[in-house]
Amino acid sequence: MNFNTIFALNSSIELSDPNTDFSILWVLLSGILVFFMQAGFTLVESGFTKSSNAVNISMKNILDISVGTLSFWFIGYGLMYGGSSNGFIITELNDLLFNPGAGAEDVFFQTVFCATAATIVSGAIAGRTKYSTYALFTIIMTALIYPIAGAWEWNGGWLNSEWMPAEFIDFAGSSIVHSVGGWAALIGAWMVGPRIGKYINGKPVTLPGSNLLVGTLGVFILWLGWFGFNGGSQLAWGGDDSVAASMVVFVTNISAAAGAVGALLISWLKYGKPNLTMTLNGVIAGLVAITAGCGNMTPGGAFFAGLVGGILVVYSIEFIEKVLKIDDAVGAASAHGVVGAWGTLVIGLWGVDGDAGLGIFNGGGSAQLGAQAIGVLAYGAWAAITSFIVFYILKSTLGLRVSREEEENLDLAEHGEIGFAGKRTRE
Amino acid sequence: MNFNTIFALNSSIELSDPNTDFSILWVLLSGILVFFMQAGFTLVESGFTKSSNAVNISMKNILDISVGTLSFWFIGYGLMYGGSSNGFIITELNDLLFNPGAGAEDVFFQTVFCATAATIVSGAIAGRTKYSTYALFTIIMTALIYPIAGAWEWNGGWLNSEWMPAEFIDFAGSSIVHSVGGWAALIGAWMVGPRIGKYINGKPVTLPGSNLLVGTLGVFILWLGWFGFNGGSQLAWGGDDSVAASMVVFVTNISAAAGAVGALLISWLKYGKPNLTMTLNGVIAGLVAITAGCGNMTPGGAFFAGLVGGILVVYSIEFIEKVLKIDDAVGAASAHGVVGAWGTLVIGLWGVDGDAGLGIFNGGGSAQLGAQAIGVLAYGAWAAITSFIVFYILKSTLGLRVSREEEENLDLAEHGEIGFAGKRTRE
Amino acid sequence: MNFNTIFALNSSIELSDPNTDFSILWVLLSGILVFFMQAGFTLVESGFTKSSNAVNISMKNILDISVGTLSFWFIGYGLMYGGSSNGFIITELNDLLFNPGAGAEDVFFQTVFCATAATIVSGAIAGRTKYSTYALFTIIMTALIYPIAGAWEWNGGWLNSEWMPAEFIDFAGSSIVHSVGGWAALIGAWMVGPRIGKYINGKPVTLPGSNLLVGTLGVFILWLGWFGFNGGSQLAWGGDDSVAASMVVFVTNISAAAGAVGALLISWLKYGKPNLTMTLNGVIAGLVAITAGCGNMTPGGAFFAGLVGGILVVYSIEFIEKVLKIDDAVGAASAHGVVGAWGTLVIGLWGVDGDAGLGIFNGGGSAQLGAQAIGVLAYGAWAAITSFIVFYILKSTLGLRVSREEEENLDLAEHGEIGFAGKRTRE
Repeated sequence: MNFNTIFALNSSIELSDPNTDFSILWVLLSGILVFFMQAGFTLVESGFTKSSNAVNISMKNILDISVGTLSFWFIGYGLMYGGSSNGFIITELNDLLFNPGAGAEDVFFQTVFCATAATIVSGAIAGRTKYSTYALFTIIMTALIYPIAGAWEWNGGWLNSEWMPAEFIDFAGSSIVHSVGGWAALIGAWMVGPRIGKYINGKPVTLPGSNLLVGTLGVFILWLGWFGFNGGSQLAWGGDDSVAASMVVFVTNISAAAGAVGALLISWLKYGKPNLTMTLNGVIAGLVAITAGCGNMTPGGAFFAGLVGGILVVYSIEFIEKVLKIDDAVGAASAHGVVGAWGTLVIGLWGVDGDAGLGIFNGGGSAQLGAQAIGVLAYGAWAAITSFIVFYILKSTLGLRVSREEEENLDLAEHGEIGFAGKRTRE
Repeated sequence: MNFNTIFALNSSIELSDPNTDFSILWVLLSGILVFFMQAGFTLVESGFTKSSNAVNISMKNILDISVGTLSFWFIGYGLMYGGSSNGFIITELNDLLFNPGAGAEDVFFQTVFCATAATIVSGAIAGRTKYSTYALFTIIMTALIYPIAGAWEWNGGWLNSEWMPAEFIDFAGSSIVHSVGGWAALIGAWMVGPRIGKYINGKPVTLPGSNLLVGTLGVFILWLGWFGFNGGSQLAWGGDDSVAASMVVFVTNISAAAGAVGALLISWLKYGKPNLTMTLNGVIAGLVAITAGCGNMTPGGAFFAGLVGGILVVYSIEFIEKVLKIDDAVGAASAHGVVGAWGTLVIGLWGVDGDAGLGIFNGGGSAQLGAQAIGVLAYGAWAAITSFIVFYILKSTLGLRVSREEEENLDLAEHGEIGFAGKRTRE
Repeated sequence: MNFNTIFALNSSIELSDPNTDFSILWVLLSGILVFFMQAGFTLVESGFTKSSNAVNISMKNILDISVGTLSFWFIGYGLMYGGSSNGFIITELNDLLFNPGAGAEDVFFQTVFCATAATIVSGAIAGRTKYSTYALFTIIMTALIYPIAGAWEWNGGWLNSEWMPAEFIDFAGSSIVHSVGGWAALIGAWMVGPRIGKYINGKPVTLPGSNLLVGTLGVFILWLGWFGFNGGSQLAWGGDDSVAASMVVFVTNISAAAGAVGALLISWLKYGKPNLTMTLNGVIAGLVAITAGCGNMTPGGAFFAGLVGGILVVYSIEFIEKVLKIDDAVGAASAHGVVGAWGTLVIGLWGVDGDAGLGIFNGGGSAQLGAQAIGVLAYGAWAAITSFIVFYILKSTLGLRVSREEEENLDLAEHGEIGFAGKRTRE
């Protein structure tokens, strides 16, 4: 029973130059920061929803990173980075599964990305989804849906084809990670239906978050982790890479700040008071908005990308809630899906490549915007269709939703525990 | 409409040597740690005050980092590091605003420092200050008050003049960041007046913190971030810089530990029981006490700096509360202002420069203590006068304070939200 | 009064090569991550126990890192790394105390390890132990018990002797840190006795945790910090060390994930519902299970080590609670003690050394398992005997336990504070 040789990663790479040492260090540290985002998502989701589902949310997020780690290691990574340059047909799965031929730091970094895509769905469908069903969805998301999406672009797949009007750009995953997660979240929230009490006579009711301080801490942790998410996507450190990765971190911070300010001001204008929930969504929107373009935006461009993202998320949340009448419990489809699309498109508006303009507003023509639009549509279609199929099958078999009685005390019903001793009411 | 070229940072620096790569990495990672301190401040302020202002505190801290990021980028950084060596007169503002000629990692690192100075004020005036007024103060603090203070020392300003008895030393900002924030906090707390119920017949009442566990987590996050705050202020990594920055982190930890022990023991002696609130303030005091001297103190010196800081903060909090009768809601003026002054002066007592003694207790004469005292007084006067003027103008125009009714439910009144669903009482 | 020269660390080391710079950076950053684990322990302990002892738990954890920092600096580090290769007899204590002859980054890294060993005890005896007694125990633990244990292996002590069947392996401290802490925790929990209401007619009652969301955040912080705990134990970066340390982080994540899945599935099978408390213990178990072998396990080996660890912790918690009838408030003896032993032994089952097998299941023979078993027994005996002696002396003098009345409101009785304003009941 020799477990080891079966799963051994190739660790025979010879290294001696500082640039390799730097790059491994940067990717590894970035991966550690991205890992911590799971805690941020847990807190955002719990803080923004009622306290009687905090155990369930914690269990979903622990599952995302745990099962995500294992399924991406067993299947996803090989599928995504299988060496194939002709799209999502994988030719050497078996070999790749057992010998990815890459550094451990890279597999780790890609793993925590994958878990992020899964966890976005968790928030949207919070408060009424069966745990067992969610677990199966997470396995499929991390083993198949996300890895195939990633291969289209990050493994030299079809989005880099010659027939594209320009090379599609998604530096750290506004589309690949966030919009894939966001559109799956929207489909999930629609199919599982609204929480009890969310719509009364067809009108949406605000279900207050149980702990906005916890939600705020969650957003700070996401902001922190995003420096690794975007900065680490440089995948290298040393010389120009050091400068580029630093600029990535810098513009990420500018965009997050602009997103916060955008949402804060819009909420102040719309509601008469500056609103914390919207401002926190604005931070996330600012972060998502720069994720595709953080290698191709100046600080000025990042400012406008984030500002528009922060405004957009407010209107998108209202649109989904009031017009589509879909109950996305934490605004995930808006912050990650809609703003993920915006962040991808904005490169076609004022992206740059060194001194050359890529976007239509700085002399780059419309080719880049066309390429970005193709990517946005492709990822939207992929995420929506695959998640619809998976949720449809799960609904027809296991069922998506707990009973009304179970929903009233979800943690007790699904996990036999309550999150906060002495607090048994459904707040 | 070409947004990009206007705000483009100069990214054409050529890099190839490991030392530059190391230094960029260290400064960037340190900046990421300092960023996270905003979460720490949010939790400390919320945990130590009543739960019905948690939304307001979250909104102030999100504002500090968001607006601080933007105003320091637009104005503050150019003002602070304008290349002028003759003090706070800036000659090339326009040029610097659009082309600071520095690395993105440095602007990022300085930005998160600036946001820290602003956020210190937030805690002292918690619970009764108008949000709109606070927002304007933060803009002025991050665009003008802090950057000019910083230029006096960190950009070769007048505190490095030849007529000074010795070169003023403030390695990471006991005075420049913490006491500037702390004195502005004291002026703010005095001008906005005490919270309802703080003084009954002129006697101070202890208003219990709503969640000391949250406050504890906040202090741990501050302690964590401070390793970047002090260590990153080495601004370089490689050779002697690696050794020096490591020693900075080491003595920072020693001083924080000694500050905790000092406050713990004093509170035990004074109140008969070891007190958590005071011990947490002792940690912060220990951190502030070593911030100026972390490049010029041995572990032994750090121990005594922190120990005295931890004792001092207990007495200072009592003095401000009982004698000055100023309601500093979280003890910010004591931990950052008073201990910031102590941390600056202690270099004149037992600071070292390599093997040479700087302080009067290790053969360095009194010149260093004189220089430190001049800096302490200058920063105290600058922060007190400028913040008085700004708060005075704000008081005469917008007003500083919410109404009595609004104060009872600050989050609802100022933001239309409650932080904790189901908890509407003013705890 | 020259405080400085007395405690001056040797900082005259000349450095110029990138490998040294890399190694200092990696050890320092890892130490910063490990430091943050103190916050994780605080949250896990508070979240899993009743809310009326949150202040006490916070005070214990602040004490662990503060007093631990000082006593390890004054005494422990010299005792542990005293240059002696002949076991735990220290010959040059005085010299070592004042001049450890090591880099500050190493002393810092070892300090936060030491504080971890101490803090494990805190959780097990939560809710009824005298603070003054705990403080004394922590001083003895960090100054003597842990440093001597560490010297046996990490300073070339007797566990590396020639008469051992093989070289004992404990890369990052499954035994040295975790099982030493875990067995001391078991002895402490036994001697201080169960909390009020834990056993009714000899049958254990589940005392629900006050805040499982806080416990979840704590576990995420531990998971995060563990990347530094294990990865930093490489003690070097550059070339092969970069690859090795990255693999350490990678297998640490795999094992944590497998531990979570193992506990989740077992709790689902045993109780009919997937249980959060057990799953969180499974994460910790997965982390402890790979701590000894993270430099000698493939990803496949890590998967099985963590999976078994996650299953083992569930049964161990039940065994200690129901059969031994010892009230370990957070399961520390199981997660750190029992699983620490498992993590040490597993190297003898399927550990590897490069391409060579060390364990009996991959052709390495039984010598390694024998060496591991000797280490497990030695550390178990050392921790159990020394902590028994110390707790016995403390019990006979100061007393271990607060009175029944004090236990009902521990925070108020021991610290004169309540953790959560408005919440005075014993939840």
